[in-house]
Amino acid sequence: MNVSIIGLGLIGGSLGLALRQTAPDRLVVGWDRDAAVAAQAQQRNAIVRSADTLPDAVADADIVVVATPVLAVRTVFESIAPHLKPDAIVTDVASTKVQVLEWAEELLPSGVAFVGGHPMAGSEQHSITNARADLLSGAVYCLTPQAGTPLDAIETIEALVTGIGARPLRMPAATHDAAVAAVSHLPFLLASALVQLTAGDAHWPDMSRLAATGYRDATRLASGDPLMHRDICLSNAAAIRPQIERMARLLDEVAAHLDDPEYLAQFFHHAREQREAWLRDRERS
Amino acid sequence: MNVSIIGLGLIGGSLGLALRQTAPDRLVVGWDRDAAVAAQAQQRNAIVRSADTLPDAVADADIVVVATPVLAVRTVFESIAPHLKPDAIVTDVASTKVQVLEWAEELLPSGVAFVGGHPMAGSEQHSITNARADLLSGAVYCLTPQAGTPLDAIETIEALVTGIGARPLRMPAATHDAAVAAVSHLPFLLASALVQLTAGDAHWPDMSRLAATGYRDATRLASGDPLMHRDICLSNAAAIRPQIERMARLLDEVAAHLDDPEYLAQFFHHAREQREAWLRDRERS
Repeated sequence: MNVSIIGLGLIGGSLGLALRQTAPDRLVVGWDRDAAVAAQAQQRNAIVRSADTLPDAVADADIVVVATPVLAVRTVFESIAPHLKPDAIVTDVASTKVQVLEWAEELLPSGVAFVGGHPMAGSEQHSITNARADLLSGAVYCLTPQAGTPLDAIETIEALVTGIGARPLRMPAATHDAAVAAVSHLPFLLASALVQLTAGDAHWPDMSRLAATGYRDATRLASGDPLMHRDICLSNAAAIRPQIERMARLLDEVAAHLDDPEYLAQFFHHAREQREAWLRDRERS
Repeated sequence: MNVSIIGLGLIGGSLGLALRQTAPDRLVVGWDRDAAVAAQAQQRNAIVRSADTLPDAVADADIVVVATPVLAVRTVFESIAPHLKPDAIVTDVASTKVQVLEWAEELLPSGVAFVGGHPMAGSEQHSITNARADLLSGAVYCLTPQAGTPLDAIETIEALVTGIGARPLRMPAATHDAAVAAVSHLPFLLASALVQLTAGDAHWPDMSRLAATGYRDATRLASGDPLMHRDICLSNAAAIRPQIERMARLLDEVAAHLDDPEYLAQFFHHAREQREAWLRDRERS
């Protein structure tokens, strides 16, 4: 099956590298709005051929992977819709899924199946330069089919995902969006907020000299692509807002208990236990 | 000069290893409330001799390094005060300094100089098992002398610090405490709060399967020693509370702007710029 990848950043590029490595005979066509990025993807053998236009990119594709930033997905759907093969399957890799599903229903032809996807891997090092064939290897790859999604389309995308060594996991789109709001979006918001709070402080010259590896790691996600983070917030605001507000209330509660040895011991002990349990489950799976 | 290390955890043990490695002839005596830990420190050559009692540990010491958890420092000062050499120099490695200085003034003999210290290195992997000779190598090592601290005592501790490859940095105790509240204590509180919030959520079974490397890194500090974190909060509550409250207000502000592309772009862009600038400064120094 011919695959086209629209958007050749970290995820699109890594997907291409993995597809080419695991099935060297497969035709993988790529397109990026930046021709230099598409050329680099071809040079690195993440794609076989770089298409000049979006219609050209999808004309012969059995599977189209839209790997652009989330807010660009709508425009891509509009552009490719008239040019898709009648039985093409479209998937995406965006961090939020409810919004993308709405666009797919609105814009893609009725014969075309759409299977929303979200690989749970990435890096604050975006762009094709950092793409690598094993980025998604072993990673959970969330798929969010709906009631009307044809089973064979779901299974085709699951086979693609399994083929590159990732682990497909079906989940309703709304469940996915609520979950990533807490475990993926809230963490990068906290990292950025921590940088804003400290670097904006009048005592930052002293603070910056004492900041060490703990600060570096706690703020790592703040080095992620600002526009990607913005777009994720805009497209998943309804799920993210209550998580931020719950965090603010929890912090107020902690601030009110900073002289309470029992509360603090319980708080830190419980957090460590829960994190260690998660790490153990993760290693086992 | 003979050195005694009281408390042979990650920092005390690493300090011993570094002292023994850089000056093999130096007598380093150690004491830990857990005899098995002291035995392990001796076996690893972090100390030359393990003392049976605190008085024995400090009787011949020119320099005493108190490397216990912060809330144990007061009791150690009480126990060692009558047994210190008249011209001994005492230092510590606790994460908060104002409180420790008050205890030193209250409890240590007037002839004994106290130089508060705090090496800006560590790990969520505490205990002697994880100690290593290069843990403090290249790290900023904050010293918080006061107006009355004899200059030769400050210089002696600075030479000790420099000798193991760390970088001494003098700073008033209150300035230190305010700075670490923001760049060291707030980060571990946020990590623990993030675990509490997510693992306590009704949707944690879904969340836990989607949580990936971003979540792992954002919560890393939550795996630190719960009692160390508790004690740091208790001993630095006055400086930590306003930082937590400022963070809660900033999060409320962000939650109110989740539909505002301009605000979000600025927020994430600015955070990334500031973090990258800090990383650059850090590499240069």
